[in-house]
Amino acid sequence: RHFNIALIPGDGIGPEVVAEGVNVLKAIEELDSGLTFSFTAFPWGCEYYLEHGRMMEEDGIDKLRKFDAIYLGAVGYPGVPDHISLRELLLRIRKTFDQYVNLRPISLLDPSLTPLKDKTEKDIDMLVIRENSEGEYAGAGDRLFKGNPEEVVLQTGVFSRKGTDRIIRYAYEEARRSNRTLTSISKGNALNYSMVFWDEVFEEIGKEYPDVTTYSYLVDAASLYFVTDPERFEVVVTSNLFGDIVTDIGAGITGGLGLATGANIHPEKKYPSMFEPVHGSAPDIAGKGMANPIAAIWSVSQMLDFFGEEKWGQAVLDTIKEMIGETEYLTPDLEGNAATSEVGDQFVKKLSKK
Amino acid sequence: RHFNIALIPGDGIGPEVVAEGVNVLKAIEELDSGLTFSFTAFPWGCEYYLEHGRMMEEDGIDKLRKFDAIYLGAVGYPGVPDHISLRELLLRIRKTFDQYVNLRPISLLDPSLTPLKDKTEKDIDMLVIRENSEGEYAGAGDRLFKGNPEEVVLQTGVFSRKGTDRIIRYAYEEARRSNRTLTSISKGNALNYSMVFWDEVFEEIGKEYPDVTTYSYLVDAASLYFVTDPERFEVVVTSNLFGDIVTDIGAGITGGLGLATGANIHPEKKYPSMFEPVHGSAPDIAGKGMANPIAAIWSVSQMLDFFGEEKWGQAVLDTIKEMIGETEYLTPDLEGNAATSEVGDQFVKKLSKK
Ligand SMILES: CC(C)[C@H](C(=O)O)[C@@H](O)C(=O)O
Ligand SMILES: CC(C)[C@H](C(=O)O)[C@@H](O)C(=O)O
Repeated sequence: RHFNIALIPGDGIGPEVVAEGVNVLKAIEELDSGLTFSFTAFPWGCEYYLEHGRMMEEDGIDKLRKFDAIYLGAVGYPGVPDHISLRELLLRIRKTFDQYVNLRPISLLDPSLTPLKDKTEKDIDMLVIRENSEGEYAGAGDRLFKGNPEEVVLQTGVFSRKGTDRIIRYAYEEARRSNRTLTSISKGNALNYSMVFWDEVFEEIGKEYPDVTTYSYLVDAASLYFVTDPERFEVVVTSNLFGDIVTDIGAGITGGLGLATGANIHPEKKYPSMFEPVHGSAPDIAGKGMANPIAAIWSVSQMLDFFGEEKWGQAVLDTIKEMIGETEYLTPDLEGNAATSEVGDQFVKKLSKK
Repeated sequence: RHFNIALIPGDGIGPEVVAEGVNVLKAIEELDSGLTFSFTAFPWGCEYYLEHGRMMEEDGIDKLRKFDAIYLGAVGYPGVPDHISLRELLLRIRKTFDQYVNLRPISLLDPSLTPLKDKTEKDIDMLVIRENSEGEYAGAGDRLFKGNPEEVVLQTGVFSRKGTDRIIRYAYEEARRSNRTLTSISKGNALNYSMVFWDEVFEEIGKEYPDVTTYSYLVDAASLYFVTDPERFEVVVTSNLFGDIVTDIGAGITGGLGLATGANIHPEKKYPSMFEPVHGSAPDIAGKGMANPIAAIWSVSQMLDFFGEEKWGQAVLDTIKEMIGETEYLTPDLEGNAATSEVGDQFVKKLSKK
């Protein structure tokens, strides 16, 4: 089994955490004689932008097309407006390669990690399935009468039948497969077109899955329950923007962005999928060896699952769980004082002993 | 001083909690010989809808126009779609009376109320100022090719210069007046028209307020910080939808919706303002005397402040704080076993002793 992986380390702490993830993959190569990876790095991101006036090469998308997976660190840097850096690299890849499923596990690895009273691993263990290709992120809009008192700015969310059907169907399949409940998060009482439609589709497709127990929450109520009753959620399906928000609340209740991963999946495998930690480029701590690489390593676990190497995906996740117990090998965000590379080295050591 | 108050008790638990709020106002009348209120109740809501096919009388808006304030309980009931019941009553009033400021205090009254570890009253004490008249809630959109594979649904957020300017300016004024920091919550990295514009206006108007310390967070990061670092926030300004979401997280970290209030203000006083608990109609517990009236009573405090009766507004808030210590007079959502009316009676007793 051989997999070609494109690396986009990106900005800020991106390169530091991707380096550790790559080390994990290399360790697995050593441990499994039947498994090999090749890595090709692309120097794209905000520094590239400042030099070349674009976030990636002109034929960047074509260059990525042939890979089995893209492993991305982080994008964003002071001096380049976010709506350029993110939209022209991260969001562009998600969209062009039709990575319409964003899989974000929200699992508490240890009770010490949550800021919530009285919650344990059993209470916080869900998978958020975020629509990742359209909706509020469609980028459609206009700005009229700029600078005049009557100026008006329009931002249009675009929810297609195809796009809504497929993500909701994916979620029902996942709930059925894993025998879990499915919760839809929407906002039909205020967003009278998009979310009324979303709710309709959720109900309609549900008829084909009578074995799946479903719930439907308003995004405001769901956000509250993430904090007070996270045990309500097992598989969650939601729109692009709402998924962005609730998964950050999810990160908040499970130990922060240093532990949050996301897989951007194109399930039909016509295009590469992308794996990335949810955190940003954190320019304030970049280059200091302080970045927590665990989210990026968790992304490697998701990538291995996606490759069909679930045994290794699970081994990586199990090793992450073991690591959490040992403060001396954790970064400052988790109350430790290890450097990024020390965490990575210790991780590889532990994994190799399995 | 005399104030005319329109009551819209609405659905579910609405009438039960409004009754307690009215009792508080009547008690204040007794205590302050210079202050009187008149109350006019309107039977609008979902039952009214089922009978008459509309949520309020045809000239309902005109009937409300002459009041100093509207005191609303809750809207929504099984059998009437939320996007009808809410949009044609609650949201219609907010919009028609140009109640463009939604003031939502998020204050922890007692450490026992928060689900967060190690947070006290000092850590959670902010005022969220939510845009309340346009933005994502504009209701603009379309549904094309209905039922066909190429079906597409559009939902357009409308951000006017006037609407954005005035809410942001209101927030700067409040931050300056109260000598607090001001945090804007937006999402410019993905919502490339509306939120880029929002950020611009926030920065522009900020130039007139060099004395106000400002922060600007993405809505995903802000949602996370509400859970992990609520002490970052003092005065917060945000859009209609984001305000809806973050104030529910705020309710989550301060004891739930039974303690969350919102004032829908038209500052220029050309139209009536509206005061309401943030919670919904909770049909599951309606009529059982289980509803927590404290949010609705807190709305009375906001109403009194708005009337310029800050002394009474503060007295009501102080009494709420005293109540929290005494579980025997709290409803089940706060671990007590008192009925709605017992909470109200005890409240009036305490207030009268002041
Ligand atoms: C960086 C940003 C555009 C992105 C998003 O909003 O999707 C990020 O917050 C995420 O959650 O992956
Ligand atoms: C009921 C609903 C339309 C309303 C809103 O979304 O504004 C409510 O959630 C609120 O926060 O006041």
